[in-house]
Amino acid sequence: MSTLFPEKPRIAIVGSGALGCYYGARLAKAGNDVHFLVRSGRAAIAVRGLRIKTPTERIQVKKVQTYATATEIGAVDLVIVALKATANSSLEKLLPPLMGENTLVLTLQNGLGVEEPVAEVVGGEHVLGAICFVGCTRTAPGVVDCSFPGLIMLGEFGRPAQARTREVAKIFEKAGVKCEAQDNLEELRWKKLVWNVPFNGLSIAGGGITTDILMADEGLKMLARRLMEEVVEAAAKFGHVIPRSFMDQQFERTGKLGKYSPSSLIDYREGRSIELEEIWGEPVRRAKSVGVPVPRLEMLYWLIKRLLAARKTDGKRR
Amino acid sequence: MSTLFPEKPRIAIVGSGALGCYYGARLAKAGNDVHFLVRSGRAAIAVRGLRIKTPTERIQVKKVQTYATATEIGAVDLVIVALKATANSSLEKLLPPLMGENTLVLTLQNGLGVEEPVAEVVGGEHVLGAICFVGCTRTAPGVVDCSFPGLIMLGEFGRPAQARTREVAKIFEKAGVKCEAQDNLEELRWKKLVWNVPFNGLSIAGGGITTDILMADEGLKMLARRLMEEVVEAAAKFGHVIPRSFMDQQFERTGKLGKYSPSSLIDYREGRSIELEEIWGEPVRRAKSVGVPVPRLEMLYWLIKRLLAARKTDGKRR
Repeated sequence: MSTLFPEKPRIAIVGSGALGCYYGARLAKAGNDVHFLVRSGRAAIAVRGLRIKTPTERIQVKKVQTYATATEIGAVDLVIVALKATANSSLEKLLPPLMGENTLVLTLQNGLGVEEPVAEVVGGEHVLGAICFVGCTRTAPGVVDCSFPGLIMLGEFGRPAQARTREVAKIFEKAGVKCEAQDNLEELRWKKLVWNVPFNGLSIAGGGITTDILMADEGLKMLARRLMEEVVEAAAKFGHVIPRSFMDQQFERTGKLGKYSPSSLIDYREGRSIELEEIWGEPVRRAKSVGVPVPRLEMLYWLIKRLLAARKTDGKRR
Repeated sequence: MSTLFPEKPRIAIVGSGALGCYYGARLAKAGNDVHFLVRSGRAAIAVRGLRIKTPTERIQVKKVQTYATATEIGAVDLVIVALKATANSSLEKLLPPLMGENTLVLTLQNGLGVEEPVAEVVGGEHVLGAICFVGCTRTAPGVVDCSFPGLIMLGEFGRPAQARTREVAKIFEKAGVKCEAQDNLEELRWKKLVWNVPFNGLSIAGGGITTDILMADEGLKMLARRLMEEVVEAAAKFGHVIPRSFMDQQFERTGKLGKYSPSSLIDYREGRSIELEEIWGEPVRRAKSVGVPVPRLEMLYWLIKRLLAARKTDGKRR
C-alpha cells in the first residue's frame, strides 16, 4: 500500500483557538511541518510560542510558524480546520491557497453540516471530518489548558474510512493524540448530538446552569430525555440506528461529571459565538425534511437563537 | 326575583395587591361596606387610605376598614379573593371566619384550577370565579396605577350563570367596573390561557423580553402559535371549542400593544411569585390526563420552573 503522506507532512492549522493550538502544538512537537494561520494574538504566539498543559504533561513549542494569510503558507498535505463553524464564511478565501492535488482538509467542527461548507470550496473528495472528545480552554493566545485530552474520531465525508483516513489517524497517534478512523462520520455526528443538543442547549435555556443542576431537576432531566429521543428518531430516519442504551449511558456519564459547564455554556457566558445552526438548527431542518417532528428541539433552537440575539443587543458579544 | 344581596352588601377583600386595592376602592367608593384583610402595608393604608389613578379618574378612599385577621371581619355577603394563587395555602385559615350561610366567594386569580382550592375550603356551591382584563400596578401600599380599567368576566364554578351571578356583576357595574356574567367560566379560563401561556411564558423563557421583541422574532412568533394550538387542542378535549380566528385575534391585538411587559414578566423581574402552576403546570396536567400531547407547553413549564428556582437560589425573591 502506497502512503499518501510524506514522513513529515506539511500541515496547515486554520484557526488558533483552543483546539487549533492544542493539536497543532502536539503535531509540531512530533516533528511535523506545521503552519499556523492566526487571526489574533499572532505577536504573542511569536514571542512565547505555544504552551499546553494537560493533566500529565507540559508541552512547549518555542518556534512557531505563524502566518496572517493562507497564501503565505501555500499548498500543504493536510489542512486542519479549527475555526468555529460560525466563521465558515471565511473558508472560501482561506482554503484555496492551501490546496494541492492531494491535499486533505479535516474539519474539527462540532455539529451537523460542517463538512458541507468545506466541500463546497475544495470538493467533497478532499474532505474529512473529526469529532473531538476533548476538554481544552485557551487561556491566552497560544496558551491552552487541556483538562481532558480524550480522543478524536475521524471519518470521511460521505464515504467509509479509506487508507488515507487511517494514515491521518496515524499522524495524530504519533503526536500523542488518541485517534480512531471510523466508517460512518455522519452517524457519529448524530450520536454526539444526542448529548450536545440537550445538555449544551438546556444549560443555556435553563438560565446558565451546569450539568449537576440539570440532572437534579426532574423536569429538565425528563426534557433532556425527550430531546434525545427526538434526535434519535431523526437520526433513525437517515439510517443511523442509535440504541436506547446509548441514551442511558449519556445520563450515567453526565451524572458523574458533577458541576460541569458544557462548552456552549462557557462560550455563551464568555460572549463568544456558539454553533447554533450546527448543533440545533441543522438537526431541526434535517428532521423536518424527512417528516420527523422535533417540537422540543425546534423550541430549544428558537429560544437559544433569541437569547443569543439579546446578547448581541446588549453589546456583550465579541 | 328575590335579591340575595342587601342594598349595601358586606364585602371582604382578601389580599391587598393591585387588584384587591383597585376593586376594593371602587366598591367602597360606591358605598358598599368593604373590609380589607391586609397582610402588609396596613399602617400605610390606615394613614393615607387608598389612592387609585386611572387614565380618566382619581379615586381616593380616605377611611379604609383594614384588618389583620379574618376573624375580626367575621361573616360577609361576598368574599373577593385577590391573593396570588401561590398564596392559596393560606385560604384554609382565611376563609372560614368570613363565611355565612349564603356567602359567595369570588376568586380573581389567573389560570386554571384556581376555584378548586377555594371550593375545597368553603364548598363548591359558594364559589364564583372571575377573569379580570385589567392593567393595574401597585406602586405603594394602597396606591394603584390602573393604566387599563378593562372589564371583568364573571362565572360560576362548574355551573352556568345564576341570578346571583348577575347580582354580583351588578355590584361591580354600580362601582364603575365593566362586568359580564358568563355561562362558561372554565372555557373563558382556557381562552385566556391562549394568550397567557405563550406571551407570559416566552417573555420569561426568551430572556425577559417585551411583546414587541417576541412579535418581531419569527421563530418565537411561530412558537407562540404552536403553543396556542396546544392549548386549543387540550381545551377542545374538554369540550371548549376555540376557533382559529381567536388565535389570529390574539396576534393582531398583541401587535398593537407595542413594547408591552406581560404581567408574569413584571412579577419575574420584580422578584415576585408567579402563577407557574395555574398558567402552565395545570394545563399540562389536564392535557395529559386526556391524552393530548403538549410538548412545547410542558417544555415551557419546566424551563420557567427552573428559571424561578434559580431566582430563589440567587436570593432575589421576596
